[in-house]
Amino acid sequence: MSEAESPADARTVIMLTSPLEAEHAARISSVFPDRVEVIFRPDLMPALRYRGDHGDPSWRRTPEQERAWHELLRRAEILIDFPQNERLPVLELAPRLRWVQTTSAGVGPLVKRLGLQDADLIVTTASGIHAQPLAEFVFAALLFHGKELGRLQNDQRARQWNRFSGSELAGRTMAIIGPGRIGQEIAGIARAFRMRVVAMGRINDAARAASLGVDRLYGRDELRTMLGEADCLVVCAPQTPETDDLLGAAELASLKPGAVFINIGRGTIVDEDALLAALRNGSIAYAALDVFREEPLPPDSPFWDLPNVLINPHSASTVDTENAKIVDLFLRNLGHYLNGDISQMAPRLDPHRLY
Amino acid sequence: MSEAESPADARTVIMLTSPLEAEHAARISSVFPDRVEVIFRPDLMPALRYRGDHGDPSWRRTPEQERAWHELLRRAEILIDFPQNERLPVLELAPRLRWVQTTSAGVGPLVKRLGLQDADLIVTTASGIHAQPLAEFVFAALLFHGKELGRLQNDQRARQWNRFSGSELAGRTMAIIGPGRIGQEIAGIARAFRMRVVAMGRINDAARAASLGVDRLYGRDELRTMLGEADCLVVCAPQTPETDDLLGAAELASLKPGAVFINIGRGTIVDEDALLAALRNGSIAYAALDVFREEPLPPDSPFWDLPNVLINPHSASTVDTENAKIVDLFLRNLGHYLNGDISQMAPRLDPHRLY
Repeated sequence: MSEAESPADARTVIMLTSPLEAEHAARISSVFPDRVEVIFRPDLMPALRYRGDHGDPSWRRTPEQERAWHELLRRAEILIDFPQNERLPVLELAPRLRWVQTTSAGVGPLVKRLGLQDADLIVTTASGIHAQPLAEFVFAALLFHGKELGRLQNDQRARQWNRFSGSELAGRTMAIIGPGRIGQEIAGIARAFRMRVVAMGRINDAARAASLGVDRLYGRDELRTMLGEADCLVVCAPQTPETDDLLGAAELASLKPGAVFINIGRGTIVDEDALLAALRNGSIAYAALDVFREEPLPPDSPFWDLPNVLINPHSASTVDTENAKIVDLFLRNLGHYLNGDISQMAPRLDPHRLY
Repeated sequence: MSEAESPADARTVIMLTSPLEAEHAARISSVFPDRVEVIFRPDLMPALRYRGDHGDPSWRRTPEQERAWHELLRRAEILIDFPQNERLPVLELAPRLRWVQTTSAGVGPLVKRLGLQDADLIVTTASGIHAQPLAEFVFAALLFHGKELGRLQNDQRARQWNRFSGSELAGRTMAIIGPGRIGQEIAGIARAFRMRVVAMGRINDAARAASLGVDRLYGRDELRTMLGEADCLVVCAPQTPETDDLLGAAELASLKPGAVFINIGRGTIVDEDALLAALRNGSIAYAALDVFREEPLPPDSPFWDLPNVLINPHSASTVDTENAKIVDLFLRNLGHYLNGDISQMAPRLDPHRLY
């Protein structure tokens, strides 16, 4: 991949398989104009519905578009996103493929489904890109509940000036399941709010706790002990076999009475029936849910109507600056890739841990 | 004031002039039982309406209660709160008075009105006690707006799963007017959210900016320059002659279009008509107001109906742990006072700056 091995007529072919705003695609072409060719064909991809969108997954190409698309894929060495809705394995569609940069973080289950866990393929993800907006959503929900903004809204509609005594986040304990980049971002903000922060992690010694910025780490076998301390539980773990069904009725019942439950990880982590029951009987006072087992959340889901639930349509991570950040990340990785510094590329998906 | 000078029959008399939960009053008596006498007469004070309340200011004693009350005041050397609704000067009512510990922070105007600016009287305030809950309210409002929780609430009522692209606090600029304890608390949290923080202060060099934890300080003559950088303006200045009418139409027009305005200081700082106009034409996108020129906010105030305003009935600072914290503070000061370490008592009101 060094410049010497890369004759001018053999530019590295980068293909975008999910749509991106035109200015971002143009930036990719502009940084290494002599060394890369960028295939960006909005006409063969779903339209963007909003800034930061990656296209409607139910959109389909016509047979003619599909032929053009597959011809392009055969040339690609680098893909931005795995191609969606394909019947053939990606390495058959794109035999020259060496690297996929994804636009989301939680692509482990996809890589497993595609049978690529042992493939000779670099997968870099957008892990970290979503940490900031997700952390902001966590505190938006926590403060909406904690500072009783619903009460203020009701009193305001009734033009009632009812003074009251509220509560504080300060001094409360937040428990985090999934202390990765997102969890660390949340922990840092929680500490600025003078909360105590605990987390469940695979490695659970004091040094690791300090490096994650949490007051204490618990092992998975101590999950219920940790939950018993939690005024607020934030789930930001990826979907892996280790996290599937992690939180059942018994785990939710271990939370402090009146706890807040926030899920920005994956819906498969929690037993939704148990969560509904806990919200109905008030043992969990409030929940903010960005993810569900079935998405879009079906119109007849009981979650919609619960007054103590805030639903986000899996958009908590999506901000208008997202694609610019993903392109920044991709261009850094592209520099390393073109220089042969594969070990510098980050964040890499661990194909066995799946995050 | 040393122990030697304080015979057993001349205990220091502390009188509470605003109500406090009984357990807190009991704590005051318990710490120095041989050296202080605590006068706590709930029967001569308004009832507590909620935890952390300091009583309804419109409540009045009967003439008989009033005589008993004034007799007690004559004995007091230390008051917790200035007595309210008195016709005589406090030093005539309480000729032995040496120290007043207030339960609020912004008592400067009261001290001026009582003519005590030059009195030989120690005034310690509750400055700092309210920093945490006020800071939490600031971010509750900022995140309610920034993370579009109103949109989520509407979509949820309609059972609509409408994905969207939001915005981030990260990278935005917060301007703070009043970088005291409250402002510093807010600045620390804003930085954890990766915001840029600027503030207006009397001293505006880099060393002072660093000690306040802000990226830049502006002098008062640079107010409009600072406002021009502000995605969000937080007013947490006390009411002083310097801050009265600080923000008129021209100042509000200097804010970045679509800015958020949050006032947790005093209503007198801002021209409310100009604020209403800016909210109606959208140049200010959203306001969260805990304070108003007239409180309670009159039922016919146009603020109630504006969809882009969040009204808090001057309760943003009031939390259920407040009185416990005030008593902690008072007891620390009482230890210093009884030991004659007057210089250690804090936070002291500067009778001329009035905060």
